[in-house]
Amino acid sequence: MSSDFDSGDRIEIQWKGTKFSGMFISRDEKVTVIKLQNGYNLSLDNGSITSINLISKFIPRKTNISERTGTGKKVFLLGTGGTIASYVDYETGAVKPARTVQEMLYAQPDLAKIATIDADIILNILSEDVQKKDWINIARKIYEKADQEEGVVITHGTDVLSFTSSAIAFLLENPKAPVVFTASQRSPDRPSSDAFFNLSGAMKVAQSDVGQVCVVMHSSTSDDSLYIHSGVRLRKMHSSRRDAFKSINSEPIGRIDKNLEIHWGSYERLGGKPMKLYDKMSERVGLLYFYPGMSEELFNKFADINDGLIIAGTGLGHMTNRFISQVSDYTNQGKIIGMTTQCLYGSVDMDVYTTGRNLQKAGIIPLQDMLPEVAFTKLSFLLGNFDPETSRSLLVKNLRGEISGRRTE
Amino acid sequence: MSSDFDSGDRIEIQWKGTKFSGMFISRDEKVTVIKLQNGYNLSLDNGSITSINLISKFIPRKTNISERTGTGKKVFLLGTGGTIASYVDYETGAVKPARTVQEMLYAQPDLAKIATIDADIILNILSEDVQKKDWINIARKIYEKADQEEGVVITHGTDVLSFTSSAIAFLLENPKAPVVFTASQRSPDRPSSDAFFNLSGAMKVAQSDVGQVCVVMHSSTSDDSLYIHSGVRLRKMHSSRRDAFKSINSEPIGRIDKNLEIHWGSYERLGGKPMKLYDKMSERVGLLYFYPGMSEELFNKFADINDGLIIAGTGLGHMTNRFISQVSDYTNQGKIIGMTTQCLYGSVDMDVYTTGRNLQKAGIIPLQDMLPEVAFTKLSFLLGNFDPETSRSLLVKNLRGEISGRRTE
Repeated sequence: MSSDFDSGDRIEIQWKGTKFSGMFISRDEKVTVIKLQNGYNLSLDNGSITSINLISKFIPRKTNISERTGTGKKVFLLGTGGTIASYVDYETGAVKPARTVQEMLYAQPDLAKIATIDADIILNILSEDVQKKDWINIARKIYEKADQEEGVVITHGTDVLSFTSSAIAFLLENPKAPVVFTASQRSPDRPSSDAFFNLSGAMKVAQSDVGQVCVVMHSSTSDDSLYIHSGVRLRKMHSSRRDAFKSINSEPIGRIDKNLEIHWGSYERLGGKPMKLYDKMSERVGLLYFYPGMSEELFNKFADINDGLIIAGTGLGHMTNRFISQVSDYTNQGKIIGMTTQCLYGSVDMDVYTTGRNLQKAGIIPLQDMLPEVAFTKLSFLLGNFDPETSRSLLVKNLRGEISGRRTE
Repeated sequence: MSSDFDSGDRIEIQWKGTKFSGMFISRDEKVTVIKLQNGYNLSLDNGSITSINLISKFIPRKTNISERTGTGKKVFLLGTGGTIASYVDYETGAVKPARTVQEMLYAQPDLAKIATIDADIILNILSEDVQKKDWINIARKIYEKADQEEGVVITHGTDVLSFTSSAIAFLLENPKAPVVFTASQRSPDRPSSDAFFNLSGAMKVAQSDVGQVCVVMHSSTSDDSLYIHSGVRLRKMHSSRRDAFKSINSEPIGRIDKNLEIHWGSYERLGGKPMKLYDKMSERVGLLYFYPGMSEELFNKFADINDGLIIAGTGLGHMTNRFISQVSDYTNQGKIIGMTTQCLYGSVDMDVYTTGRNLQKAGIIPLQDMLPEVAFTKLSFLLGNFDPETSRSLLVKNLRGEISGRRTE
């Protein structure tokens, strides 16, 4: 029996006297797998299959992305990979990134009702593989589009989304157009996917007057509301829920209802200030979560190979007193060591306890209520573009809304 | 003028024609500092002081701890340092640990109304300095008391409380008496301190029939309710709020109202099973938070110097594919590498994405919804007391309630 079908072909299988029709997925020595209309996969043992017939070949539906498509204000859609642009890999059953913008827009043709969309994919990796050089490439591409005063929506994986959104916020000063990240926790082929609503909301925000890098994601597990988060204030706080993203130490800057109306909170509007692109990031910055009993050897390694180190300390910004003399040595060498809290919520305050005071004396800089990952992208940005002295002073200054400048309680 | 006063002495100062009385704190070349009745410190320049007189010498009020004090069921109070046992260091203005149980109970004589208290201080360090050997000492002391069927309340710093509570939960199997940790976010000398209410609640729980290691802390920022958390399910989620502790991926096991009534949820009762003390922890276990662009050199260092490694990966349990061949090498050497999520909430699921599958093929063990720090203390416990093969199989087994065994959504 022929297995000369491609994934996506519609076929009809006769199995133990019953007829099944669906989408061909795979066939090996033992079983043939098809996807039924209801979305479920069915594995049938080859021995009991009496016939397989082709109903129709799979023809990918293409959106004509070389020419603008849709209605409404122009938006540039920038694909960088992630679940929102993922498809099920029928060979392994796992989710893999989409290879083309066509594949990405294919599932969501209704986006054209919201905006006149042009699109490009510049990265095609899962977000856990993102590196600093990727952030620079993304920033360059956004700069190019924003310079034409065109709103940009960037689709991205959720895993390190807050790293990327904060990196872009630092690299791109005073964007001339909205810069809006979005992502999805469930891939677009699943009925429970959040991809379409998130993308639609992001399209709307990209047509607004928002002048700070932001992120649009579900605000609850139902499909009726989105939050607009500051790109330097959010964190993925659940591995699977659609409302995984939370603004930390800050309120979301807006909400989008199910009719795609935006209800703004406090946000920064596009201003007349000149846009500036910074296109360097230091590779010699590390992020270290402290834990009890951590060895000196590890601490030293972190400090040795980096010029800048962000520590996610305990509580108000502590780590063991055992490391204090090393900290002194490293900061005396000119290395910058900043302290954040692994509590995530709240601010560091290194004046309360003796340990905090001693760590400060040794040269550690308290970073107020900046999130550890945001402090990490900020210091990478600073040491990439400024001398150490300037970096040190800018690190504690609120550049993009990443610091409240207040105690949170 | 004499400055021959001790901290705590009551004095009277004549300054620019005004008389101040309060507690002597310090005096240097320039200023004399006293604490007024209202709790505020007052600095007076020595040049304008015309007289200082002693009203009364400071006499520390001692609780007679060699003999049992109080009413109600016996509870053993074990001090290990932390804010709950801290005092303001008048020299620097910072908070320092109390040196004696007397100092600790001094501020809270009303505890004697709740329980017949005996007490001891076995550690006197701020919790960021806690090491694995300290956990073993704490476990030994608790075992000794629990073996006499005496409930134990352990006061501890908040910073790494969840590390310690989970370590003790693993080291002490089937405790014969309640084992209850408590702590405070505000030191007992401050009017907003949560120390007394937390301690009182912990005393009540230590007189109950709870058979799992638990932690009692404020449930809100007001002083009207406490939560009883499982010792293997909580995390400090705010640097300063009194309700900083949250049960993660699990409900609190009980609540205590302002009348110190306990309202139990689902909890484990003391059973007839034999209590067992494990008194080893492997020092060769590390905890690594992955971040984008992390260098191979750092990953290798973490894996080189440890036999066991807990990774706090992104999302459903990912880290860069760049490390996969090294992961294979290390797991082939017999090292145990477990994966948790830095989202904290939710479970890892390494079957969804290609990266997760590849990491599993390379030998990484998905650790479901265990918190990163709990997985760290668990693997330290396992490799300290069992061979690697047994450790590997117990790591994914629910031993003390640390794994739900279900997807959280």
